[in-house]
Amino acid sequence: MDISRIRKDFPILTRKMSDKPLVYLDNGATTLKPQPVIDAVVNYYTYLGANAHRGDYEMSAQVDAAFEGARVRTQKFLNAKHKEEIVFTSGSSEGLNLVAMMVTEQLLHEGDVILSDESEHASSILPWMQAGKNKGTKIDYIPLDEEGKITVENFKSVLTDQVKVVAIAMVSNVMGFVAPVKEIAKICHERGILLVIDGAQSTPHLNIDVQDLDCDFYAFSAHKMCGPTGVGALYGKKKWLNQLEPIFYGGESNARFDKSCSLTLKETPLKFESGTQPIEGVIGMAAAMDYLDAIGKENIHAHEVELKEYFLKKAEALGNIVVYNENAKSGIVTFNVKDKDQMIFAQDVASYLNTFGIAVRSGQHCAKLLPEVLKTPGTCRASFYLYNTKEEVDQLIDALKNATVENCVSIFF
Amino acid sequence: MDISRIRKDFPILTRKMSDKPLVYLDNGATTLKPQPVIDAVVNYYTYLGANAHRGDYEMSAQVDAAFEGARVRTQKFLNAKHKEEIVFTSGSSEGLNLVAMMVTEQLLHEGDVILSDESEHASSILPWMQAGKNKGTKIDYIPLDEEGKITVENFKSVLTDQVKVVAIAMVSNVMGFVAPVKEIAKICHERGILLVIDGAQSTPHLNIDVQDLDCDFYAFSAHKMCGPTGVGALYGKKKWLNQLEPIFYGGESNARFDKSCSLTLKETPLKFESGTQPIEGVIGMAAAMDYLDAIGKENIHAHEVELKEYFLKKAEALGNIVVYNENAKSGIVTFNVKDKDQMIFAQDVASYLNTFGIAVRSGQHCAKLLPEVLKTPGTCRASFYLYNTKEEVDQLIDALKNATVENCVSIFF
Repeated sequence: MDISRIRKDFPILTRKMSDKPLVYLDNGATTLKPQPVIDAVVNYYTYLGANAHRGDYEMSAQVDAAFEGARVRTQKFLNAKHKEEIVFTSGSSEGLNLVAMMVTEQLLHEGDVILSDESEHASSILPWMQAGKNKGTKIDYIPLDEEGKITVENFKSVLTDQVKVVAIAMVSNVMGFVAPVKEIAKICHERGILLVIDGAQSTPHLNIDVQDLDCDFYAFSAHKMCGPTGVGALYGKKKWLNQLEPIFYGGESNARFDKSCSLTLKETPLKFESGTQPIEGVIGMAAAMDYLDAIGKENIHAHEVELKEYFLKKAEALGNIVVYNENAKSGIVTFNVKDKDQMIFAQDVASYLNTFGIAVRSGQHCAKLLPEVLKTPGTCRASFYLYNTKEEVDQLIDALKNATVENCVSIFF
Repeated sequence: MDISRIRKDFPILTRKMSDKPLVYLDNGATTLKPQPVIDAVVNYYTYLGANAHRGDYEMSAQVDAAFEGARVRTQKFLNAKHKEEIVFTSGSSEGLNLVAMMVTEQLLHEGDVILSDESEHASSILPWMQAGKNKGTKIDYIPLDEEGKITVENFKSVLTDQVKVVAIAMVSNVMGFVAPVKEIAKICHERGILLVIDGAQSTPHLNIDVQDLDCDFYAFSAHKMCGPTGVGALYGKKKWLNQLEPIFYGGESNARFDKSCSLTLKETPLKFESGTQPIEGVIGMAAAMDYLDAIGKENIHAHEVELKEYFLKKAEALGNIVVYNENAKSGIVTFNVKDKDQMIFAQDVASYLNTFGIAVRSGQHCAKLLPEVLKTPGTCRASFYLYNTKEEVDQLIDALKNATVENCVSIFF
């Protein structure tokens, strides 16, 4: 993997921040875009131009080919069995909300339990909490182990006959641990439990095979994997997508309707795609898949893990860095900085790093149940991706070396 | 309005279709993109790059400024009183679905009536039909007059004490008539009725002042007004947005939540914007607003109406064109072609026009109750926009001159 060549694909890496070369380590929030993705979006604006599924002319047929081609591309990216199992969405959050609403309303009953855990992102747990309020379902929690990860043992320990859904992230956006999805799926299906996976943080970094994982639903966003914002996909097993009724209604999802409210929907996936879709987004997402697969996600993941280990070694030598997820095999490092016995407020550390051109995130990272587990109100998160380098890690370490309370706070004055 | 100069802003207008210069007359479905919109999107990819509302570094603050700046831009575009009244969506369909679901579930009761009409797009009527199924609300129809338009008289004729919502398009996507929204709003508010406007076909062409119209909700899409797909906005009066609870939940829309499902939402508009938003879409939409306002929507509309009148005059001389919406002051012409006593199948006419490089739409245009009113199973729709010319209308007319059954069908063999 030739990082210097990869970096040339990302025009934004020539920009500066705080008058320093940009060191972008906030890939868990969103990722930078390579030229082929930008070109695919611009090609829609300058050549394709039409709406999808709606016209009777060549340009429109070309859009259809690109749009439905992107569906097949997504099917391959996830190794889904059927292209009809791929529903385009505005991103993970929409996908997870739709599943929670459809499943709760159409398949669950009062007293049914959804298993979640305390490391979940708001978009993975809140939709189930809210959809369940009308229905009388409830949330239970898989206890995290002492490192903050989901284990099969702990999962088994909370299984009851009331559990009908397990809704977890494959990779936690704060901890970076990979959940044992395949083992959990096996147990779920022995008991008729649905398994819903938040793939926002796994899809950009790991090869995903939904048939091998055997999950029932899997949602992800394009923007966390070098693609555009405002687009993503929801995978659902065909038997579920055939059975479920959509949440949204409108143009192109219906075959016909009449004044008396009798409605005939199209088949999946079209019944779930009302209104004009994010067309250049879908096309850009497919270009991002081509880009990542050409490099190989196994190479990308190995590179991220290598950068993390390099950081951990250097951070240990510094002595003032507390890392919360040392053993998670991913590119996510969640940490705080100590000044003598005092933990520096994470947001102050992030603002201090900004003065060196370094972008990291601070706070609760939308996983608002986690601070209780980690026993800290907030953390800094550095998250690596394919274009990051050891030199950038060195810059981060160099900056953290002098991250005292005084230095972190003095930037505001 | 210098059309030849405007055309230079749209790079796609140099492309060919069926080996002929492209004549794009499907602007009711989606519109072409000018260079400043493309540049704004590309600038996000090559310079801004970060997520919104999430970071502690300069680049992220720059994204926030662009993103929230686009909200203020949208506020001005609609002349909304408060920027908190602008909620970003994936487009009109999402906006209208959200309103129908929130209002039906949270404000309506069994037996309440929603007034619609038979010229509505599926996205304006289906969400109310579907949301009402649980609640026991029902749809009634404002009778269209003999031309197919909504009149204040006909609106008054179906008002009852059960009517709680009026949900109509400001401009019908097939007929092109402008509904008397302001007069209807006045009557609605005397009776405590909510007025929900589908602005998909009005926003691109008319100056919109939601305070003057006094509607309660107003939804539109960017892609029908020179902006990106996958983005739009929902305007709602602050008192309603303050009161309503969102449909979707996730990151950034909540202040906090705990294990026992107690949730504190942020204020509007953030409570309605869960998950990463279509950031470059929102930025591109603001650029489209700048572009359209610099030209002036009153000029754009006058140009479209002029093209329509030019078409009508020429079509009348041809003698074989049946126009269904002659008197609608807009750029939409809905027509069929006659060959002796036989009406040619609209899709065959559209396919025939494609061989001349001309893009029009055929079918029911997602307004599936309308064929009964028009007494025809389908129509062709030519819809003009700021970049269309009289020469293009001439090309359309020249092609239609020879649109016989034989010529239209022979292209398939």
